[in-house]
Amino acid sequence: MTRSGSILLDRFHHPAQVVVAGFGLAVAVGTLLLSLPIATTTGESAPFLTALFTVTSAVCVTGLLLVDTSAHWSVFGEVVIALLMQVGGLGVMTLGTVFTLLVSKRLGVRARMLAQMETKTLSLADVRRIVARVVVFSLVCEAVAAVVLTARFAAGYGEPIGRAVYLGVFHSVSAFNNGGFALWSDSLMRFVGDPWICLTIAVAVIVGGLGFPVVFELMRSWRRPRRWSILTRITLATTVGLLIFGTVAFIAAEWSNPRTLGPLDDAGKWLAAFFTAVMPRSGGFNTLDLAHLYPSSWLVTDLLMFVGGGSAGTAGGIKVTTFGLFAFIVWAELRGEPRVNIGHRRLPEGAQRQVVAVMALGAGIVVVSTYLLLVITPHSLDQVLFEVISAFGTVGISTGITAELGTAGHVMMVVLMFIGRIGPLTLGSALALKERSRRYELPEERVIIG
Amino acid sequence: MTRSGSILLDRFHHPAQVVVAGFGLAVAVGTLLLSLPIATTTGESAPFLTALFTVTSAVCVTGLLLVDTSAHWSVFGEVVIALLMQVGGLGVMTLGTVFTLLVSKRLGVRARMLAQMETKTLSLADVRRIVARVVVFSLVCEAVAAVVLTARFAAGYGEPIGRAVYLGVFHSVSAFNNGGFALWSDSLMRFVGDPWICLTIAVAVIVGGLGFPVVFELMRSWRRPRRWSILTRITLATTVGLLIFGTVAFIAAEWSNPRTLGPLDDAGKWLAAFFTAVMPRSGGFNTLDLAHLYPSSWLVTDLLMFVGGGSAGTAGGIKVTTFGLFAFIVWAELRGEPRVNIGHRRLPEGAQRQVVAVMALGAGIVVVSTYLLLVITPHSLDQVLFEVISAFGTVGISTGITAELGTAGHVMMVVLMFIGRIGPLTLGSALALKERSRRYELPEERVIIG
Ligand SMILES: [K+]
Ligand SMILES: [K+]
Repeated sequence: MTRSGSILLDRFHHPAQVVVAGFGLAVAVGTLLLSLPIATTTGESAPFLTALFTVTSAVCVTGLLLVDTSAHWSVFGEVVIALLMQVGGLGVMTLGTVFTLLVSKRLGVRARMLAQMETKTLSLADVRRIVARVVVFSLVCEAVAAVVLTARFAAGYGEPIGRAVYLGVFHSVSAFNNGGFALWSDSLMRFVGDPWICLTIAVAVIVGGLGFPVVFELMRSWRRPRRWSILTRITLATTVGLLIFGTVAFIAAEWSNPRTLGPLDDAGKWLAAFFTAVMPRSGGFNTLDLAHLYPSSWLVTDLLMFVGGGSAGTAGGIKVTTFGLFAFIVWAELRGEPRVNIGHRRLPEGAQRQVVAVMALGAGIVVVSTYLLLVITPHSLDQVLFEVISAFGTVGISTGITAELGTAGHVMMVVLMFIGRIGPLTLGSALALKERSRRYELPEERVIIG
Repeated sequence: MTRSGSILLDRFHHPAQVVVAGFGLAVAVGTLLLSLPIATTTGESAPFLTALFTVTSAVCVTGLLLVDTSAHWSVFGEVVIALLMQVGGLGVMTLGTVFTLLVSKRLGVRARMLAQMETKTLSLADVRRIVARVVVFSLVCEAVAAVVLTARFAAGYGEPIGRAVYLGVFHSVSAFNNGGFALWSDSLMRFVGDPWICLTIAVAVIVGGLGFPVVFELMRSWRRPRRWSILTRITLATTVGLLIFGTVAFIAAEWSNPRTLGPLDDAGKWLAAFFTAVMPRSGGFNTLDLAHLYPSSWLVTDLLMFVGGGSAGTAGGIKVTTFGLFAFIVWAELRGEPRVNIGHRRLPEGAQRQVVAVMALGAGIVVVSTYLLLVITPHSLDQVLFEVISAFGTVGISTGITAELGTAGHVMMVVLMFIGRIGPLTLGSALALKERSRRYELPEERVIIG
């Protein structure tokens, strides 16, 4: 790889270092803050591993919990957690969008998102514009969700207005950034039948997880679906397909389960099934007690969590684009077609191999982590696999074994959450640089990230 | 796909029909025979599902058991089972070898295996020669293993010579064809420390599962490794790698497990670990009680069973070649290499996509079957996944739940064993035909299979 005179490559060997350093710094600062006595309700400093685990979970917008958030952390601690989720979410969206633009010339997003169509690199001004747009987009979405939630908490549940605003903003930030932290010990189970709260949270999770390039393209040309890029088409189709699949699977399997959907009325069953189908991509809230899902439903959840959400959004997993493209590749091969065509465009061979590599690496990380956790804990494969994919996919839901994994297990989960979050980003940056060095003349303009 | 004037394509729409019809016929005839009163020790006809399950398990050389073989079936029944394993094993080797030759021009096996290097199709004489070689090879290997086993049963365990020959031949046939049936209710657990029996069985399983094209190439040019084809190199490297990986994994995890390796002396531990590492590819015997392996070891076994053995041998699974090539593809992508080179040869793009398709289909079948079995049985994911992969990979080992799956579960397992056996073959035939129609002038010579 040749280093051009970019700011980035002058300072760092590789953008992967920026990603690791950025998230690592956020984790370090956050751990320091949550280790302060004022961060806990008791006024005593939290144990180091508890603070580290919680902060990693917040920065990586995962949402796995060692301790109950509202019971253990003070308002100061909760605000720190919310800010860490915001920082983590913005970081992922910004970095993801920049990497997407660097490789997406062929996907068609790039031209529409950048002012100048003829340029072949991202200028500093481009990057600034992207960051500004991402921030504005995030804050607007969060504000809208916060207003709805606040109104509902105040009007429907009699919360004082100050408390309602606090709850509204916290859960809006947590939902849009796919953070998964909630201020009730049962996550959102008490709202299982409340469409205002469930649908608001679900929509925030979906929009945050679609990915900024797709959202931006939809805003620009939602009236002209024929001009949508492959990225947008695949993301939307796979998202809708997986949501329908998940909802129907949970309805079919859990309809009469007395500990999940059973007690709800018909509308409530559909709402809860839909909510449970949305959260694996990778919101991380729950309105059902996931410990009581049938093991078959855990397996469905595993698949949804592994796939995750859209590229360059706040979601995790291998991404719906990867999964959708993989399905296209396999389908084309089974039909004996020599080329993989999507719409009227051809998927390049290089992209096919990237898809396969991302799927293989993801599966490899999950299998190895599952093996290690099986060795060091007494839990069954059902629960361990669920926990591992939840951490890898930055999802944050659990069958309830998170607190019981032991010190070694918790350290492993911290590492896995970190890898699950930065792995795809660093891989993305590597592919972005590879693409540039292969496909374009080396740029004279400067590249900066973050 | 254009149909040439071959015998095969005149009679059938597609070779897949030959495969399905052949194995289906064997299952039907076998079920009829095992339903006879003389097939059981009690003299009463076996229930239909018991006969069907046992016959499918034998023809597909799987080895999953609904009933204890020696307790339930008479000598007549046992001979039928042995013959079905022999027919199934020969069928798989013959068909697999023919399909391999049809696609393997680029892999280099073809030229060495056929007399005439310039021909581009298989003549009837070629196919006859292949069948003859496969039969001779099988019988010679089985005879050698039978002699060793017979001697050991007679000399080491005091069996009368007639009984020793019977046991020797039955288990030799079962091992070489990767059938997995044994005439003791505990499989081979009583021989856990006996290297004569364990190593003979293990070697027979490995040789039978390497695949005829590889064995033949090794016999022809074992002194000149540089001339080995990609097929042979990948098969050997992956086989050796997986055997070492499996043995070490079982040694590391189970060394002190009081219900598996724990009670054995050091040499016995290594022998049992090696034997347990060989059987997933896809012999199907066991000398340890697999129900008492740690769940982490079940996961290792799952991986080994999914990969299985060599192409065009008696083994099942997605095959070591598929797995090895997949690893090469991912590795090349991660290193940023535009081409996948193995040795001094380049792996064609088409072959890469076939590898991905086979892996994806295999994983898809396993996941869907696991989901269904989780729904219809009360067992945990650990055990269900193990059972499903064992059936899909025609392995035949179990954590002990086979008999408890219920009627629906048993029907599903029959279907899964059948799919696991004929799926790769029909896929192979489809790819073979596709290759032919893409790469070569359509042949004038006739093609016949079986
Ligand atoms: K999450
Ligand atoms: K077998």
